[in-house]
Amino acid sequence: MNNIGVIGLSVMGMNLALNMADKGYKVSIYNRTTSVVDDVMRDHGHKNFTPTYDLEDFVKSLERPRRVFLMIKSGKPIDMVIDQLMGLLDEGDIIIDGGNSYFKDTIRRSNYLEDKKINYLGVGISGGEEGARFGPAIMPSGNKEAYGHVKDIFEDISAKAYGEACCKYISTGGSGHYVKMVHNGIEYGDMQLISEAYMLLRDIGGMDNSQIQEVFEAWNKTELESYLIEITANILKVKEADGSYLVDKILDKSAQKGTGKWTNLEAIDLGVDVSVITAALNARYMSGLKDERVKLSTIIGENKAEFAGKKDLLDLMGLNKEDLVDLVKKSLYASKIVSYAQGFKLLSVAEKEYGWDLNFADIAKIFRGGCIIRARFLNDISAAFDQDKDVENLLMTDFFAKEINDRLADLRKLVAIGAMGGIPITAMSAALAYVDTYRSSRLGANIIQAQRDYFGAHTFERVDVDGVFHHDWIDEDEK
Amino acid sequence: MNNIGVIGLSVMGMNLALNMADKGYKVSIYNRTTSVVDDVMRDHGHKNFTPTYDLEDFVKSLERPRRVFLMIKSGKPIDMVIDQLMGLLDEGDIIIDGGNSYFKDTIRRSNYLEDKKINYLGVGISGGEEGARFGPAIMPSGNKEAYGHVKDIFEDISAKAYGEACCKYISTGGSGHYVKMVHNGIEYGDMQLISEAYMLLRDIGGMDNSQIQEVFEAWNKTELESYLIEITANILKVKEADGSYLVDKILDKSAQKGTGKWTNLEAIDLGVDVSVITAALNARYMSGLKDERVKLSTIIGENKAEFAGKKDLLDLMGLNKEDLVDLVKKSLYASKIVSYAQGFKLLSVAEKEYGWDLNFADIAKIFRGGCIIRARFLNDISAAFDQDKDVENLLMTDFFAKEINDRLADLRKLVAIGAMGGIPITAMSAALAYVDTYRSSRLGANIIQAQRDYFGAHTFERVDVDGVFHHDWIDEDEK
Repeated sequence: MNNIGVIGLSVMGMNLALNMADKGYKVSIYNRTTSVVDDVMRDHGHKNFTPTYDLEDFVKSLERPRRVFLMIKSGKPIDMVIDQLMGLLDEGDIIIDGGNSYFKDTIRRSNYLEDKKINYLGVGISGGEEGARFGPAIMPSGNKEAYGHVKDIFEDISAKAYGEACCKYISTGGSGHYVKMVHNGIEYGDMQLISEAYMLLRDIGGMDNSQIQEVFEAWNKTELESYLIEITANILKVKEADGSYLVDKILDKSAQKGTGKWTNLEAIDLGVDVSVITAALNARYMSGLKDERVKLSTIIGENKAEFAGKKDLLDLMGLNKEDLVDLVKKSLYASKIVSYAQGFKLLSVAEKEYGWDLNFADIAKIFRGGCIIRARFLNDISAAFDQDKDVENLLMTDFFAKEINDRLADLRKLVAIGAMGGIPITAMSAALAYVDTYRSSRLGANIIQAQRDYFGAHTFERVDVDGVFHHDWIDEDEK
Repeated sequence: MNNIGVIGLSVMGMNLALNMADKGYKVSIYNRTTSVVDDVMRDHGHKNFTPTYDLEDFVKSLERPRRVFLMIKSGKPIDMVIDQLMGLLDEGDIIIDGGNSYFKDTIRRSNYLEDKKINYLGVGISGGEEGARFGPAIMPSGNKEAYGHVKDIFEDISAKAYGEACCKYISTGGSGHYVKMVHNGIEYGDMQLISEAYMLLRDIGGMDNSQIQEVFEAWNKTELESYLIEITANILKVKEADGSYLVDKILDKSAQKGTGKWTNLEAIDLGVDVSVITAALNARYMSGLKDERVKLSTIIGENKAEFAGKKDLLDLMGLNKEDLVDLVKKSLYASKIVSYAQGFKLLSVAEKEYGWDLNFADIAKIFRGGCIIRARFLNDISAAFDQDKDVENLLMTDFFAKEINDRLADLRKLVAIGAMGGIPITAMSAALAYVDTYRSSRLGANIIQAQRDYFGAHTFERVDVDGVFHHDWIDEDEK
């Protein structure tokens, strides 16, 4: 009898199966188009693989409780396979969805299968093809007892970071897919922030690719150390046959596959400001309007603001290039903190909304290896949440409040430089505005409440007396 | 026989019925809780009203094609009343939904009723209780022929602006409710921009309420002339019995009823950047975290950036208070243009997505009266779209490109002042960043595409050759 079965043998499914087989688990493999099973056995056959060609044989080949790992297209295909499995599985068996399912679908399926006494685990898996093969970050959720039956396998195949498996139980229902969704939103933010740093160095600093490359390489030895900074440094090295840099030949039109979109829709729905992540998504949307951008670039000028009559922005600011690099570094790091603070805030609101029990310190630990956003500073995030489990926001922890305070004046300067120099650093601007909004005990929202009460009698609260009030503005006006 | 019947006699329904009755139309009125019919007749009876107490009598009292105007709670109640009406209406009769329905519900209902040969008009109505009574802005959609049967009534009861009815046929399906939804998103943007202007004058300019009041009153005689500027000036006049200003006593915690949320969800779904409107929504969300804001205000300092060693921000910039007022005015107007450009861009993408045929010049005209966003500059928007019907964005029209170009350097300065001074002017910052993104023929998205191709083989396009490319970054890296 085999330990686990994998349904769906596209690259992700096959690589996860190989990863498990490498760790000594006996794996049944199955694919709806059965010829794929033969292809996999021929090209990637493993001594621990058992090929199967119909679902019944597949199920029969598994020890109990059966572990059925789905690595198939999210959406309807999952529901179809679940239906097919229903007649074949027994009470207590475990279905695992390791795909990019929408978390509300996972909640629905969990409830449906709970009635039938089948366990359903919704598992976020990050790390792409390489991760799946050699160690992904894993975010498992569902019935905790059922998770006990797959825990060892998951921890064995997961990435390791600082001696720990990048795999920790999240909570019930769709929480694993939710955390993966937020991970992807944060990934969007990180990528946009790096692209803004690159624009600033290129367009304000006037630096060439080789200089920018050195900067990123150096940054990767600091608090910014992360996979995305590392690969950006690598990218900036690549030259074409004619000696020109490949990065200059790549069209500035970025695509997206929808996962960053979910994070934004969810944040808006739950009333959480994730403005850095939203800026990243919008930047991708706007980048897609290449033709319109080229057209508008001839219509709207830069109209740079010039203070004190000086022309060059760095001169004007009394800054040299090294200063700019330092400002960008500090701003990138501060903005990155804000982006993660927003992502974790979304998780904490979702925790209440969906009745989960999330351990933010653990979640930060999962992200430290195997996935795209792996970064040194996740250790600090984990430690900060560990120290203050009930903190309302990462920005309020001792460590990160200090990190922000140390860099806030620099972020201000850089956002001002971006504004005056015409460089659209939307994510960094959003990060600064978020901090400034959040640290404002007194905003301008009293005007908005007054307007709402004026035209719609929507009422307002007062600073001096408890209660809900309405003022008869219009009569007042006509006195 | 009566000309039209109104179902649902809460304030909005009653006021619309009174408005129609005033214009000489004979109106049957009905309410599910029938005692309300008596209450209305007793307190607001009109010679043109016919009270009815069951749906059959109500329907029988109407001339054909029957016009049944629903002014009831959106959602399930609408579907229930439609079901009840099905046995009573005849082919060609017209059901009108004048509530705040979600446009996709309206599309669904239109299709359902089309099969039954009943006409369904989804009608956006703006202007609140006063508007309903004396002239709202009306955005009717659905079968155009059916609209012909209500056009006169709608135009008679609508607000008038510059001699025209603020009521023009939009397009088929849910387009009327869609335009109303975008109107509400724009309204959020306008209100946030005004609140930011207020914060800047208060916190950077150090101006008191009476000075700020004068500024708004003066602005209302310029290109900023609008209902919201006007009422803001009125609000700033209001004093309490002890002589203090009411606006200072209103808690800076603004609420929202969900309609601005829809606009943002829809924009993200369709891939449209409506960052000014999103900033407005997020500002409301953040304002709600009053306790957390007070707490963070003691943890994160302002850390104002200080250039050239100067302390006072205006001094530093070489500006006096009059200069600041002028910067704020120009920035408010430029940001408002951007906000409307984003809203109309959303409409143009929706037009293609949902197969509508929208006339943006007409839509701008509707907004000129009866609704919250009524403003002088809607004449210019209407004229600009009239002149260039196929323009991709309002910012590309001759008139508004010039308006933006004339003010862009000022908007830059003000966003820089906000950043350096710690004032979270998120909507104005978003407006500037949108213009700077849009007018950039070359962004930093090439880095993002390189990253995506690096870790996920997502491919990229090139600037020099057509096609889709993948580079083997990792092998390159290991060379």
